[in-house]
Amino acid sequence: MLIVQKYGGTSVGSIARIKRVARRVLATQKKGHQVAVVVSAMSGETNRLLGLAKKISEEPDHREVDVIVATGEQVSVGLLALAINKLGGKAQSFLGHQVKITTDSAHSRARIRAIDAEGVLDACRQGKIAVIAGFQGQDENGSITTLGRGGSDTTGVAIAAALKADVCEIYTDVDGVFTTDPNICPTARKIDRISYEEMLELASVGAKVLQIRSVEFGMKYGVPIHVRSSFNKTEGTWVVPEDKSMEHVVVAGVTATRDEAKITLFGIPDKPGVAARIFAPLSEGGIVVDMIVQNVSADGRTDMTFTLPKGDVKRTVELLRTKCGDLCGGGERVSTSEGLAKVSVVGVGMRSHAGVAQKMFEMLAKEGINILMISTSEIKISVVVDGKYAELAVRVLHDGFGLDKPPAERTQVQ
Amino acid sequence: MLIVQKYGGTSVGSIARIKRVARRVLATQKKGHQVAVVVSAMSGETNRLLGLAKKISEEPDHREVDVIVATGEQVSVGLLALAINKLGGKAQSFLGHQVKITTDSAHSRARIRAIDAEGVLDACRQGKIAVIAGFQGQDENGSITTLGRGGSDTTGVAIAAALKADVCEIYTDVDGVFTTDPNICPTARKIDRISYEEMLELASVGAKVLQIRSVEFGMKYGVPIHVRSSFNKTEGTWVVPEDKSMEHVVVAGVTATRDEAKITLFGIPDKPGVAARIFAPLSEGGIVVDMIVQNVSADGRTDMTFTLPKGDVKRTVELLRTKCGDLCGGGERVSTSEGLAKVSVVGVGMRSHAGVAQKMFEMLAKEGINILMISTSEIKISVVVDGKYAELAVRVLHDGFGLDKPPAERTQVQ
Repeated sequence: MLIVQKYGGTSVGSIARIKRVARRVLATQKKGHQVAVVVSAMSGETNRLLGLAKKISEEPDHREVDVIVATGEQVSVGLLALAINKLGGKAQSFLGHQVKITTDSAHSRARIRAIDAEGVLDACRQGKIAVIAGFQGQDENGSITTLGRGGSDTTGVAIAAALKADVCEIYTDVDGVFTTDPNICPTARKIDRISYEEMLELASVGAKVLQIRSVEFGMKYGVPIHVRSSFNKTEGTWVVPEDKSMEHVVVAGVTATRDEAKITLFGIPDKPGVAARIFAPLSEGGIVVDMIVQNVSADGRTDMTFTLPKGDVKRTVELLRTKCGDLCGGGERVSTSEGLAKVSVVGVGMRSHAGVAQKMFEMLAKEGINILMISTSEIKISVVVDGKYAELAVRVLHDGFGLDKPPAERTQVQ
Repeated sequence: MLIVQKYGGTSVGSIARIKRVARRVLATQKKGHQVAVVVSAMSGETNRLLGLAKKISEEPDHREVDVIVATGEQVSVGLLALAINKLGGKAQSFLGHQVKITTDSAHSRARIRAIDAEGVLDACRQGKIAVIAGFQGQDENGSITTLGRGGSDTTGVAIAAALKADVCEIYTDVDGVFTTDPNICPTARKIDRISYEEMLELASVGAKVLQIRSVEFGMKYGVPIHVRSSFNKTEGTWVVPEDKSMEHVVVAGVTATRDEAKITLFGIPDKPGVAARIFAPLSEGGIVVDMIVQNVSADGRTDMTFTLPKGDVKRTVELLRTKCGDLCGGGERVSTSEGLAKVSVVGVGMRSHAGVAQKMFEMLAKEGINILMISTSEIKISVVVDGKYAELAVRVLHDGFGLDKPPAERTQVQ
């Protein structure tokens, strides 16, 4: 098999841990596999480097910041290659431009456009272990780019796709993907298999174990992703194409995101083009609006509410006042509310199971949790509630949908 | 003018110092010059990175060590570019492979083969300040290489040569090249102008202000090098082609190297091929022998003495015993002596002035300093003395040859 292993910052966070990763990589090779490894910067290193840049400029030039932070992964690949060689293996490090990984020029959040992994493949064929810097690439001008936080996951899966690898193993400091955050809900269980789509939805609503774009890559190129712990040998979570068995599990996971806020505009004209006039300036201002709800109209006027990260509230209100003051009385008819949470349940089984939303609302009502907003997709239902209920809501929904039980028993529940 | 400025590790050793360098670079540009800047790693950074590598392996693979240590300069160029941009300038960083600087594949001590500085030149023409990583290049396989300690000097001068720059300014933490080490000799004076050849000889016998290869580059391509302090604006030392005026100054500088040792082989056969048999295994063992002296032969036998760094003595004796034991009685007829110093006087004026050696010996004899070995070149005389006399010998020769006086008065002295 050709296996790509990706190790995160915690897994290579010290010299001792780098040596442990080297042993693990070599053990994999000794089983007869070809191995390419993608590594992140040692934990804390990216923040240290960003800190240096911030000491010079609060708004540093993205191109040069990428030059600086890319050194974190560069040190990691060198050290891991040394550790593998020290143990008698043959390793060769590859930086983004050496692989080569071509991206667009959106520094600090670049997207991979192409990977020419011929050199890496050559190294693997010669029995070498290719040690590849995650998180970084090169744009068409030859400038260094980085893929944004968690970008090493994307590098791992993209390299696996380019190499047509049999699996991309994502090593992390937890045992896999859980039905919900074990810190909130003690009955949380490790998920054995989950579909790309479910994983995408979970990642987009707060499960931080995989970067969203890495899942998109996996789905697009059909790369099986195995999320597992670098601290033990237990099987983790396989992220794979959807199959029939998954449909029986209605809800695969529950997550919550905190620090949500909502803004309501009262009495805006209920006519075409108004929503566009409200949201265009926000979008231009880089503000990501999540849910949007519009009330039933009365007398040609309506109320509109949307959610956004708490940190963006002040700037958003300012933008509304200056860019479309005529619609909201110069800001007079704008109300804000912070301290909210979004709680979501995700599962491909929802496609074939009716009444999931209804059950969800009942469970929350029974605990006296008021639902402020609702949004649904084909495989996800999200509700906004008062932030103080977030943990309770997660626990109630988790056990209510039977996630505290193994999948085989769970299907009986619903 | 097109000016290349090179700043060493101390000059960019902190965020505050990087900001100061940025101001200096911009001030140079504001005077109407085009500027390219070469920078070293922040002081201490290269050692920190080497320390990480050593924690993994005592004999780490050179290719991967280069990947690791090259990040030191990478961080520096990013930070300096940010600092220049923050002050309203337009800077662009260049790594070795981006310039691009092609070297051989001798990792950790690579030699520059070619520089294609078209991109740098383009940036300069557009009014940008090119900020170039010193010390690093790329070999023909696309692997990162480094040029060895002090390699940023070489990058600076080589870039200046490639750009056909008017001057390469080497910024350091001293005011220039001195007639001798001011810590040893309080009458030491800053040299205003010195020839490439003198600078080469001084650098080879202990003056550490410029890397030898950078001087070789300057000489080969006729790049005027201006060594000066980054902490003030005073003129430093110009390293330039030899001119007539320099001949009047017989001795340009005095230096001493400590930690020398000598090894003597007694009663070796005085016939062709013996020296080769002795020194071949040392050369293969990477031991750099400096001076070699052979006594007048008696009864077909002779004694041979050579100097070498103190740290190599033990290994050398071992090599002599195992590789040519028949010549030295299995090591019985080998004697070693440590704690020596080599004191040298350098000056192009020696070519046209007789009796410099004689004067030197007289001065040392007057102080009761015994000369153990002598070696001369066209523009240099070196003597080996007991290490305890090193400082005294330097002071005596320095003032004896009039280096405590300005050059104009000095020519009268001899």
